[in-house]
Amino acid sequence: MEFFKTLTLTEIKACLAVLPRHDSDMEMIPIDQALHRVTSRDCHASYAIPMFNRSTVDGYAIKSVETIGSTDSIPSFFTLVGEVRMGEISKNSIAEGEAIYVPTGGMIPEGADAMVMIEYAEKIDDETLLIYKPSPPGAHISYRGDDVDEGDVIVSKSKKITPYDMGLLAGAGYKEVPVFKRLKVAVISTGDEIVDVSDPIEIGKIRDVNGYALLGRLKELGCEVVMKVLVKDQFELLQSTVKEALDRADLVLLSGGSSVGTRDFTSNVITSFEKSELLTHGIAIKPGKPTIIGKVGEKHIVGLPGHPASALIIFNTIVMPLILAYEGRVYKPFTVKAVLTENVHAAAGKDTFQMVHLTPSSDGWVCDPIYAKSGMMTLLSNASGYIHMTNEEEGKRAGSIVDVALLQEVQA
Amino acid sequence: MEFFKTLTLTEIKACLAVLPRHDSDMEMIPIDQALHRVTSRDCHASYAIPMFNRSTVDGYAIKSVETIGSTDSIPSFFTLVGEVRMGEISKNSIAEGEAIYVPTGGMIPEGADAMVMIEYAEKIDDETLLIYKPSPPGAHISYRGDDVDEGDVIVSKSKKITPYDMGLLAGAGYKEVPVFKRLKVAVISTGDEIVDVSDPIEIGKIRDVNGYALLGRLKELGCEVVMKVLVKDQFELLQSTVKEALDRADLVLLSGGSSVGTRDFTSNVITSFEKSELLTHGIAIKPGKPTIIGKVGEKHIVGLPGHPASALIIFNTIVMPLILAYEGRVYKPFTVKAVLTENVHAAAGKDTFQMVHLTPSSDGWVCDPIYAKSGMMTLLSNASGYIHMTNEEEGKRAGSIVDVALLQEVQA
Repeated sequence: MEFFKTLTLTEIKACLAVLPRHDSDMEMIPIDQALHRVTSRDCHASYAIPMFNRSTVDGYAIKSVETIGSTDSIPSFFTLVGEVRMGEISKNSIAEGEAIYVPTGGMIPEGADAMVMIEYAEKIDDETLLIYKPSPPGAHISYRGDDVDEGDVIVSKSKKITPYDMGLLAGAGYKEVPVFKRLKVAVISTGDEIVDVSDPIEIGKIRDVNGYALLGRLKELGCEVVMKVLVKDQFELLQSTVKEALDRADLVLLSGGSSVGTRDFTSNVITSFEKSELLTHGIAIKPGKPTIIGKVGEKHIVGLPGHPASALIIFNTIVMPLILAYEGRVYKPFTVKAVLTENVHAAAGKDTFQMVHLTPSSDGWVCDPIYAKSGMMTLLSNASGYIHMTNEEEGKRAGSIVDVALLQEVQA
Repeated sequence: MEFFKTLTLTEIKACLAVLPRHDSDMEMIPIDQALHRVTSRDCHASYAIPMFNRSTVDGYAIKSVETIGSTDSIPSFFTLVGEVRMGEISKNSIAEGEAIYVPTGGMIPEGADAMVMIEYAEKIDDETLLIYKPSPPGAHISYRGDDVDEGDVIVSKSKKITPYDMGLLAGAGYKEVPVFKRLKVAVISTGDEIVDVSDPIEIGKIRDVNGYALLGRLKELGCEVVMKVLVKDQFELLQSTVKEALDRADLVLLSGGSSVGTRDFTSNVITSFEKSELLTHGIAIKPGKPTIIGKVGEKHIVGLPGHPASALIIFNTIVMPLILAYEGRVYKPFTVKAVLTENVHAAAGKDTFQMVHLTPSSDGWVCDPIYAKSGMMTLLSNASGYIHMTNEEEGKRAGSIVDVALLQEVQA
C-alpha cells in the first residue's frame, strides 16, 4: 500500500476545484420542463411587467384631486365617459370631471391617476357617477414596470429554478430557458458480497444499499445517472468499468470496499489511468474516513466508504458541493438553531458529523443525537440533520444551542 | 350575484375533507423510480438487516474474555485457524485460544464474540497471532437485525420517499415499491387579457404567469398535470373546459378572473354541473380573498385569485394540504424562529400571510417583511417564507421572535 497523507476536510475541499462549464454544457429547454433546473446565465426581462398601468380593482379611473373631500353625505359628481374592456387598449382618456369604468387588470386610461373601488361609487344614470370617498394619487394602480422593469434580471445565473421563477420567466416571455445540461454521473457499487435488489440473496451477502441511496441523492440534485452497476472485486473488471464510466460520465462515484484491501484496489485503479492523480487516501472526518478522491484528466473519481451512513455523509459534505460547483453554485447547508439534549463528543482531530433528530417545542427546535453502529442505513433515514463539529472542537454540551444542518424535510 | 358567506381559513379547511384513496389509486413502481413518491402502505422488512453478524473492521474474531489484560508489553497469544472470505458463509468456528481473520463486512464465525482490529494484532507466523489490546464483548460487530429487524416497518405508509428510504428499501429487497398513483390535476387559466408564453403579446394583454407557477408547484408535490389550458371569458367555453377537466383529473384549479364579473362566472360554471356544491365564495384571508371553492361529485374545483402572489398563497395554504390529504399526509409547514426587523400589521378579521426574507445572523435568523402591490410575482420569488397571523391577531412587533414557514430553499 502506497502511503498517502490523510487530508482534513478543509484541505480536501480546497483542492477540489472544478473547471467552469463551457457553452457546450448549456441547453435551452421549454419553460414547462424547467422546474429545479439551474440557469446557465442571467435571465433579463425584455419588457416591463406590467407592460402598462393596470387597475388592481374593479372601479372607476378618475383624477384623484377631484375626489378630495368626498364623503357619504357630500359626494363628488363625475361624468361617465366610457368603459375599458379587459385585454384591450384603452382608446379613451379622461378630462376634468370625467370617469371611466376599469375592471381589475384593465388598462388605466390617459389622464387618470387613481382608481375608486366600485364599493365607494354609485351610478345615478348612464352618464352620472357619485363618488363617496377620496382616492389618493396612485390608488389601486399597478404601474408599468412595478413588478419587473425592462432589462431587470428576473432570475440570476446559477439559480435552481423554483415554481415562482417559472411564473416570472413565463411572464417575461421565456418560452425556453437557458440551463446547464444535467451533470452525468456514474455510480459503481463494488464488493464480492454485494447483491442487487433484483437478484436473489443468500446468507453472507448483503444487498446494494448505497447504489440506490446515491441514485436518489443524485436525482434530487438534478444529475443524470448514466451508469449504475455492481462490480465484483476484480482489478481488471473494476478498471474496465471505471474506464467506461470515465468515457460516459462527468463524475464517477465508487461505493463499497471499506476493507483495507478493497481501498487499495480503488486507488490502484484510479492511478492506472493516464493523467491520473490521487488527491487523498483517507479524510480526517467521522464518519467517512476511508474515502478516496482522485482525478483522471479533469474528471473526479470519488471512492466512498462502504458503510451506508458514511457514504452518504461524504456525499453530502464533499460530493454535493462539487456537483453544485459545476453549475457555479456554492453549497451552504440550511441550518436551524436547536437545543441539544445530551452531551456529544467530537472525534479528536477530525471533523465530526453527529446525526440528530429534531422535535419542535414552544421555544423552537430541540435535537437529540442519534447513535448507530457503523454502516446502519436507519441512522440516516431517521435523522433530521447533523451537527458539524470542526477538527478543533471537543464536543457540544447538553443544553447548548447548536446549528443543525437539515438532511431532509422535517415534519413538525 | 348570488350571496355566499365568506368563510374563515379555519372554516374552509374544516369542510375540505377528501375520501381515502382506493386500491385502484395505488401502483407498484421500480425502486429506481421511487424518489419523492408516496408509499401507499407500510413497507416491512421480510428479513433482518444485517442478515448475519458482521465485522465492522478488518481484523480477528476472538473470544473477548481471552483478550483481557493484553498490553503492548504483555500481548495475548492466539492460534490462527483460518480466514473468512467476503460474501461467503463462514464454515469455521473458533474454540478457546483460536482466532480467525475477518475483513470488514465479513461474517463473524461461531464461537467469537468480539473483533480485534488489525492495528492491535501481529501475525508472528502462519499460525500464531499476538493481540496487544483487550476487546470487550460485541466490539466491532454489527449483529443480525441491528439495523432492521425482521418484520420492522422500514418506511411507513404515506411517507414521501427520500434517497435514504430508497437505500433502506433496496436493502430490504424491495425491487418494487407500493405507492399512490400521481394525483391528476387540471390547470385552467382564464381571462380575455391572458396570453400564453408561446404566443405574441401586445399592449393591454398580460402573459399567463399563474399557470406556469402552479405547474411547478404541482410537479414539486408529485402531481401529474393532465391539462394546462388557457380559456377566454366565455361561459360555454369555460363550462366545456371544466367538464373535460373533471373527466380527466382528480382536482381542477382555475386561475385568473379576479374581477367580480369573472368570479361570478367561475361560481356559475361550478354550480351548472349536477351534484355540484359551492363551499365558499371568498375566504377571510389576506392576500387571497377572492377564492372560490366548490365540488362536483367528489372532485374539488378551486378558483384561485388572479393575482399571482395571492394565487400561490392560496395554493400553499389550502390546495397543498388538500393534495397531501389524498395521500394520507398531514401538511405542517416547516418553520424557523426569526427576529422580525419591523412591525407588521394583520388585516382585521383575516388570516394574514406576511411574506418575509430571511438572512442569517450569529444568533440565528433575522426576517424582513417584503411588501409589494397586489399581483406581483417578484413578491414570491424573492420571499424565503411567510409569517402566518391568525384572524384574532393584530400584528407582530419589531424585535419579536416569529415563526417563519419556509416557501423555498434558503441559501445562507
